Amino acid sequence: MEKIITYKSLYSFTEKIFLAIGCSPEHAALAADVLLQADLRGVDSHGTARLSGYVRLWEVGRVNTQPQIKITYETPSTAVVDGDRGLGLVVAPFAMKVAMEKANNVGTGWVSVKNSNHFGIAGYHAMMALENDMIGIAMTNASALVAPTNSKERMLGTNPIAVAVPADNEPAFVSDMATAAAANGKLEIAQRKGYDIPEGWAQTLDGTPTIQSDILKHQGALLPLGSDEKHGSHKGYCLASVVDIFSAVLSGASYGPWAPPFPAYVPLPTNMPGEGLGHFLGAMRVDAFRPAVEFKKEMDHWISRFREAKPIVPDKKVLIPGDPEREMTAIRMKDGIPINDIVWSDLEDLSTRFHIKLI
Amino acid sequence: MEKIITYKSLYSFTEKIFLAIGCSPEHAALAADVLLQADLRGVDSHGTARLSGYVRLWEVGRVNTQPQIKITYETPSTAVVDGDRGLGLVVAPFAMKVAMEKANNVGTGWVSVKNSNHFGIAGYHAMMALENDMIGIAMTNASALVAPTNSKERMLGTNPIAVAVPADNEPAFVSDMATAAAANGKLEIAQRKGYDIPEGWAQTLDGTPTIQSDILKHQGALLPLGSDEKHGSHKGYCLASVVDIFSAVLSGASYGPWAPPFPAYVPLPTNMPGEGLGHFLGAMRVDAFRPAVEFKKEMDHWISRFREAKPIVPDKKVLIPGDPEREMTAIRMKDGIPINDIVWSDLEDLSTRFHIKLI
Repeated sequence: MEKIITYKSLYSFTEKIFLAIGCSPEHAALAADVLLQADLRGVDSHGTARLSGYVRLWEVGRVNTQPQIKITYETPSTAVVDGDRGLGLVVAPFAMKVAMEKANNVGTGWVSVKNSNHFGIAGYHAMMALENDMIGIAMTNASALVAPTNSKERMLGTNPIAVAVPADNEPAFVSDMATAAAANGKLEIAQRKGYDIPEGWAQTLDGTPTIQSDILKHQGALLPLGSDEKHGSHKGYCLASVVDIFSAVLSGASYGPWAPPFPAYVPLPTNMPGEGLGHFLGAMRVDAFRPAVEFKKEMDHWISRFREAKPIVPDKKVLIPGDPEREMTAIRMKDGIPINDIVWSDLEDLSTRFHIKLI
Repeated sequence: MEKIITYKSLYSFTEKIFLAIGCSPEHAALAADVLLQADLRGVDSHGTARLSGYVRLWEVGRVNTQPQIKITYETPSTAVVDGDRGLGLVVAPFAMKVAMEKANNVGTGWVSVKNSNHFGIAGYHAMMALENDMIGIAMTNASALVAPTNSKERMLGTNPIAVAVPADNEPAFVSDMATAAAANGKLEIAQRKGYDIPEGWAQTLDGTPTIQSDILKHQGALLPLGSDEKHGSHKGYCLASVVDIFSAVLSGASYGPWAPPFPAYVPLPTNMPGEGLGHFLGAMRVDAFRPAVEFKKEMDHWISRFREAKPIVPDKKVLIPGDPEREMTAIRMKDGIPINDIVWSDLEDLSTRFHIKLI
């Protein structure tokens, strides 16, 4: 049975847990905001479901809750940020602010980040740009779960790419996607419900297609977007590689199969070529191309035309990237956030341990 | 029966055709170079197979062979370029040079282009950055052939994204991919050979999955990368949309279903919201992030590790993006470029018409 908790209660609990593990008030509030936005938007795998995971990383010393995040190198439109092993939840917003300052000055800003940890949903960081009439871009590498085309070895994370584009009267265009055919969270849901997964999501340890939802526990791998070569899996492999290179090779983070794992019980890879996880954040001022009002009105036109695309099934309309998450946010702000048994039990454990009331 | 022609002969013929339709010597050489690189790299659909198409666009006045390509707006890291209805084959390299100059000055450069035409292979323009130790990015919108998830209407082009990343001893990483499950060229090949296409590439006019290779002639549509919703077609739709927005909404080109068609006999859409096709070109100096030598050595390490990924089938190794095209280039420089019957007949027609010897 899942529990329902209000946004306010869950936010408050999460913030207090981050305070309890040593975050500054500012960082605790920010980290809670990033996680809660995932829960609100319906990306349940990336919200408070991960709170206990972040705590465990802190316990084993892989997360520094009082990081000195700093710019280690910069030009007018670029920077490298060292996250000092901080929570990606606070390191990425720091880097995105740097990108936006640079965009203010020279039109665009691009920041590659090393020595960080998982940053929650990519969309959060991309969307930071919207209020400044900027296009926001966010990507991150992650521990290897995805096998490139022809490979039986896991070499890349589900390496998401998010792009947020402001509009005028229409809500913003917000694309936020893993570069795998299906993100890990979808396999976890299938596992919990005892369902098989569709062919095209995963393969076994020897590279055979499988519908087994717990295959990652048996050294299987996720497949890149495209699923198989005939349907363009090499394109998903290309995209995940670009994310890995921009996030980690540009910054000096660890990449490919050496990206550090999220579960604290999984040992760090040996011979890591860089420091921690990497992210890549970008901001482009729209008025560095054309007047912002003009651009945003054109985006309204783009969006309304796509909404009017003739649907295959009359009552299943064509969506604009960001629509489902925005609708989910409205529902969950009103009705509360559903939390499944396993996550609820994790949260209760944190509650007991840190003497922080959950509801 | 296909004919074989040497690189040199085909280049010379192509250059002369461009001269014959009024291009300057500089533009004719550049346009021929861009087309021939497609033929060499094995992207047969985007090379001289399109030469007669460009000529027809010139005939109907949609291509201006003596364009005044100019920057209409700029900031230190951005620009908008007006292609003056020129060949995308020369407009895009102009814009890429602007991007590289800006990258020289402030670390990165980003150029959105309007009023252009088809630019050949995206990879050509991205690869221009390599010799300057820059990462190159190129994308373009194109006439609508792809139906978004849930749509039976064609709304987006096969909108490719190319990313080129320099390495040191290893050849560069060059990813160049359509954001559709399969590009139009693959359907044309199947048609010519009388084969069916795999499910997941296309749908009929009413949105039903199909294996009919000539479905585009019957108002069918290509499917986004991911093929169906279960396998992430919404992600391919997101990617194609981002390409459309960066290339056309930022610049003021025509977008979505209004992108101008390549075949000269297809009337231009009515109520076009912008001018011509749009492109988006980016350049990032790698030493705007870390010393170039260090970065390139790290890329060598990335590449060699991915080459060593355990293959599923022992003799089918994991490839690095750019490998197949580089190998094809070596073969075709040596053995010549195969040209199919239909294209050969088109080239012969051009030869007759412009009194230019083909071989």
